[in-house]
Amino acid sequence: MTSFLRKPPSVQTAAGVIITATAVVVVVGGIAMRLLDHKEYSNIWVGMWWALQTVTTVGYGDVTPARWSGRIVATLVMLEGIAFLTVTIAAVTSVFVARAEAERDAADAVEEDKEEDRIGARLDSLDERLERVEGMLRKLTS
Amino acid sequence: MTSFLRKPPSVQTAAGVIITATAVVVVVGGIAMRLLDHKEYSNIWVGMWWALQTVTTVGYGDVTPARWSGRIVATLVMLEGIAFLTVTIAAVTSVFVARAEAERDAADAVEEDKEEDRIGARLDSLDERLERVEGMLRKLTS
Amino acid sequence: MTSFLRKPPSVQTAAGVIITATAVVVVVGGIAMRLLDHKEYSNIWVGMWWALQTVTTVGYGDVTPARWSGRIVATLVMLEGIAFLTVTIAAVTSVFVARAEAERDAADAVEEDKEEDRIGARLDSLDERLERVEGMLRKLTS
Amino acid sequence: MTSFLRKPPSVQTAAGVIITATAVVVVVGGIAMRLLDHKEYSNIWVGMWWALQTVTTVGYGDVTPARWSGRIVATLVMLEGIAFLTVTIAAVTSVFVARAEAERDAADAVEEDKEEDRIGARLDSLDERLERVEGMLRKLTS
Repeated sequence: MTSFLRKPPSVQTAAGVIITATAVVVVVGGIAMRLLDHKEYSNIWVGMWWALQTVTTVGYGDVTPARWSGRIVATLVMLEGIAFLTVTIAAVTSVFVARAEAERDAADAVEEDKEEDRIGARLDSLDERLERVEGMLRKLTS
Repeated sequence: MTSFLRKPPSVQTAAGVIITATAVVVVVGGIAMRLLDHKEYSNIWVGMWWALQTVTTVGYGDVTPARWSGRIVATLVMLEGIAFLTVTIAAVTSVFVARAEAERDAADAVEEDKEEDRIGARLDSLDERLERVEGMLRKLTS
Repeated sequence: MTSFLRKPPSVQTAAGVIITATAVVVVVGGIAMRLLDHKEYSNIWVGMWWALQTVTTVGYGDVTPARWSGRIVATLVMLEGIAFLTVTIAAVTSVFVARAEAERDAADAVEEDKEEDRIGARLDSLDERLERVEGMLRKLTS
Repeated sequence: MTSFLRKPPSVQTAAGVIITATAVVVVVGGIAMRLLDHKEYSNIWVGMWWALQTVTTVGYGDVTPARWSGRIVATLVMLEGIAFLTVTIAAVTSVFVARAEAERDAADAVEEDKEEDRIGARLDSLDERLERVEGMLRKLTS
């Protein structure tokens, strides 16, 4: 977590990784539940149905692990679900924030260009005056 | 997802689209459940009651699809629910961030105006000196 | 929603309003459920226990409204719950983002001060040269 | 809340505190449930299994507190769960936003360097002209 906060991955990489990880967790979690708890999970589709409910935090509770091995798998699926929601929300939010910023930056750039133009105009008038000074001196020395 | 991250829609458009999509998903999901699972869903209002619980991730589990056709519809409703929560949170967050930024930008603009004023004052004093120089030269050459 | 996105309230106001609104919804929702569904909700504490589960989207489903009047109240409580989560997450996120920005802005301000100092040093050297020019001209004209 | 919004902790501190707090809440909540409700919670592992479901807002409802003492503990666990989700999402979002900003800031810095270079070039040409003026005056006065 700490190293992640210090050197974060690109937003697109993180979004891609978490979506893939979630798909893998739903499939692998479903298969694991079928293997660990034959009675409650009569086939792997029931396992995957449970895993999807868990990952999205819907949690109907129509199928839940009754054995401890299954509950340990469930713990991992729940924590991955939180990671999935967190990264998805963070990725989309950062895109929305960036878009708003881009618009404000464009307005700022116009303002800065105007500022540069004002300073430029003053430097122009200084330059014109210096040109006249130089012209008069040239006459004097010739 | 990738193309969305690269060329994102406006925040207001995204918020409008997802709220409309969620309302449609609750209604269509409710009707679909009634059609696919007559026993569990005795009328379309039960279907919509279930869809709303699912989309908000509350998931009481008092009504859940028992048939596979219903569970496939439920999968779509759950994923739309995540999209709804994500876009809603992202939209409101970007508004709050923008507001905080606008205040900070106003303070920055004041600081930049002061900086421009300081440079302007120095250019003024250069200009006055040059005016005196030009005046003396004019006397010399006349 | 649209007007909210255009003229947003202050982050602190929004956070205060939503926390108060959520406390009110838990209490009023609990009382409403007791009044509307005597059988399932044997006292107002059961109603408030249900409302808190709903607002936080935990939704155990140990107590759920069976009557339609109760389900309409539940719909409002669920939607308020989403608003509560959204505004809470948005408020805390904008505080975290603002903090990170404040640090970056401080670094930017140091950089801009250096830039102003460099321009200032060049204006100083121009001024010194002009002072020498003015001095020589004064000698010539005296 | 208000004081938190005004003088916020560092993002990394907040993330560390909330992750530790959540781990403590799951363990202590599990033990408390075992002590308060012997019938429903046959051992502390059942208590912790319930606490984890609650903190992540999954809420299957396969184990729920039936006594009021347990429901008061549950209220605290639910509210801590919301704080956990909020701070986790806010921390990761602020990291993603900061990363996007850092890239934009780098582009801005290049633009500002160019602006400084353009002003510098004009100051150079003013300086050259002044040097010629000074040279001519030196000849005149010698």
